[in-house]
Amino acid sequence: MCKYMKDDLLKVKKGAAIFRNMSTAVKNNIIFDIAKLIDIKADEIFEKNMQDVENAKKSSLSANIADRLMLDKKRLDSIIDSLENIITLDDPVMKVDKGFKRPNGLEILKVRVPIGVICIIYESRPNVTVDAAALCIKSGNAVVLRGGKEAINTNKTFVKIIKEALVKNDVPEEIVYYVDDPERKYIYDLLKAKEYIDLIIPRGGTSLINFVEENSLIPIIKHDKGVCHVYVDKYGDIQKAINIVYNAKVQRPTVCNTMESLLIHSDISERDVREILKPLIDAGVKLVGCELMHKTFNLEKANEEDWYAEYLELKLSVKIVEDVFEAIEHINKYGSHHSDSIVTENYGIAKAFVNGVDSAAVYVNASTRFTDGFEFGFGAEMGISTQKLHCRGPMGLEDLTTYKYIVYGNGQIRT
Amino acid sequence: MCKYMKDDLLKVKKGAAIFRNMSTAVKNNIIFDIAKLIDIKADEIFEKNMQDVENAKKSSLSANIADRLMLDKKRLDSIIDSLENIITLDDPVMKVDKGFKRPNGLEILKVRVPIGVICIIYESRPNVTVDAAALCIKSGNAVVLRGGKEAINTNKTFVKIIKEALVKNDVPEEIVYYVDDPERKYIYDLLKAKEYIDLIIPRGGTSLINFVEENSLIPIIKHDKGVCHVYVDKYGDIQKAINIVYNAKVQRPTVCNTMESLLIHSDISERDVREILKPLIDAGVKLVGCELMHKTFNLEKANEEDWYAEYLELKLSVKIVEDVFEAIEHINKYGSHHSDSIVTENYGIAKAFVNGVDSAAVYVNASTRFTDGFEFGFGAEMGISTQKLHCRGPMGLEDLTTYKYIVYGNGQIRT
Repeated sequence: MCKYMKDDLLKVKKGAAIFRNMSTAVKNNIIFDIAKLIDIKADEIFEKNMQDVENAKKSSLSANIADRLMLDKKRLDSIIDSLENIITLDDPVMKVDKGFKRPNGLEILKVRVPIGVICIIYESRPNVTVDAAALCIKSGNAVVLRGGKEAINTNKTFVKIIKEALVKNDVPEEIVYYVDDPERKYIYDLLKAKEYIDLIIPRGGTSLINFVEENSLIPIIKHDKGVCHVYVDKYGDIQKAINIVYNAKVQRPTVCNTMESLLIHSDISERDVREILKPLIDAGVKLVGCELMHKTFNLEKANEEDWYAEYLELKLSVKIVEDVFEAIEHINKYGSHHSDSIVTENYGIAKAFVNGVDSAAVYVNASTRFTDGFEFGFGAEMGISTQKLHCRGPMGLEDLTTYKYIVYGNGQIRT
Repeated sequence: MCKYMKDDLLKVKKGAAIFRNMSTAVKNNIIFDIAKLIDIKADEIFEKNMQDVENAKKSSLSANIADRLMLDKKRLDSIIDSLENIITLDDPVMKVDKGFKRPNGLEILKVRVPIGVICIIYESRPNVTVDAAALCIKSGNAVVLRGGKEAINTNKTFVKIIKEALVKNDVPEEIVYYVDDPERKYIYDLLKAKEYIDLIIPRGGTSLINFVEENSLIPIIKHDKGVCHVYVDKYGDIQKAINIVYNAKVQRPTVCNTMESLLIHSDISERDVREILKPLIDAGVKLVGCELMHKTFNLEKANEEDWYAEYLELKLSVKIVEDVFEAIEHINKYGSHHSDSIVTENYGIAKAFVNGVDSAAVYVNASTRFTDGFEFGFGAEMGISTQKLHCRGPMGLEDLTTYKYIVYGNGQIRT
């Protein structure tokens, strides 16, 4: 690692040790000041953001990326709203998960504490800079931000504002550190810096996530793809099925908790299947199907890749299955262990589904679209974890902490 | 990865999917049968074990390793006791961590479920084979065992017995899989097998742990070294200090929760320091110290490496510090974030210490030797995690599970 980076990360780590026990009031004040400064300095932000958007347009980046980069009054207000919301959330630090007394009189508390230094490696959307920093601040962590070069001017402006808020509250400004890395020179160093960084969270496309996973010596929490299913059981209420299937696919097709594959029990009548599919077709959803769906409903044939596909657009694969067990097997094989739902009124089948499907969120009679920190009532989220270790599903403030055991004794020794 | 390994791991994964929802009764029966079979087949085990011990003696392995390999009646009985103990523990699977109802009527349960396939990479002690397998079975996981070549005959005998118990209970024997890898051909494959393995737990020396950390694509939980401290504050009760310091160093110096470094407040009288050190010296503990300890008590001078050292023997570094803050800084810098204790009767100083020290277990007026799954009341342990993600400190049965959200709806869709 280059000396310059090492020195900087050491400062971050030292800042983290001071910041770890900061009071909730100070942390909220910092977030409040960030919100205020963003409001005051909106014009400066727009100006810097315009540079990024112009650069994106000039370069070969897609219009899609340029749009995601762009900040207007409405988007800036939503960043400010999000900050104000984080202020209202409970501070997870020093929350007691468990407490018990041992026969020898030792009193043991399992207490939540900040993780330390969290590194977020992300792409395009500059709101992540503010959002991720605020979530780390609220949970008592220092944060190393490494955004994409396409948002560099906006990101640096936001970080300047965040540091101003830190200084105003007498907190070491080093606890928020932006890695200015347009040439991808330092990302490798970051992934090896296990003495300074406790956790890496990659947020972006599959290639970014794979790169981080393959090169990191530091534990990571992935926010990977969502290949979500709805299974309409033969005991399903057809009206519920129609609503849930439509909502899961059409309400917001570009996000990870949207349905990508629909499984239908073979006993459901052709007429009912048509009722389920009609609103999708009317909404412009392109359907591909299994052999049987192809024959009976004239759907274009799905290939093997379709069952694994995260379309993130108005496209859906549809398959007829024999029973809940075939549905479970299909979901566990082709899905991404994210969010899957069954529509049924049968108790035993619902139970088999929730026990059998190995996903972060398993639903009975509800849309997969609810997998989200806000919908789950966590008040905010860093993302949706698709792994099993440390945290799974929506990653809230509490998941940005670890724990320690505090043991109160009175001279106990081990015999 | 070689095809042979891939096929085998696929079988393990399929077995895990079946085993995931196995009843507590069946899991306990399996463990009971393992214990019974070990008792019945003791002679066979001793015979195979003798081969390993003889091989160790013939090769260049130290007497220490040969001793760790060796099984006698007493050690076998303790393996059986440990199995019987695991039977008595609560099944962590389907334990509800949290449950709440959202304003839209969705009922959300956060429920503990098995992780899936856990791979243990370990050295020498063959009891790990039985112990780790039983803990994984009780927590509903499949397990891939990759032991050291020095215990190969004993390990394979144990695995044969475990598989016999699985078959007897109509459970796919594939859920316990032993990787016969005397030439280190497959370890690299295991570390990359992220499609089949959910978690890797390395148990062994630093070089093994570093190798796993550097090469694994799969999340790992490290059980690394313990550089533990006791800090005797100026408000400490000297009798408690004498007892705790002696216990933390001498009671079992070869384990990770033993004290390696003693910090003493500079206001404590020479006479009291001598009282603290005398029992250690009488027990044959070799002391090295800071400049002041060298001058005043004629201790051999410690060098910089001594403050980082995990001696695991009757050796101790001793340093005079100015106050609790210097103690905290020293511990966070040189320690391994494992277990650290303060001896004090002062409320504010105790509080500063437990908040400031960033370790898995922080003690007030008790020996560091209590950091242990049994002493914490977890009933068993897979080891003591020295990392912050997923689990920290003693790793009990519950830490061998992850969770899923089960969401019960009544037709809810997102608006």
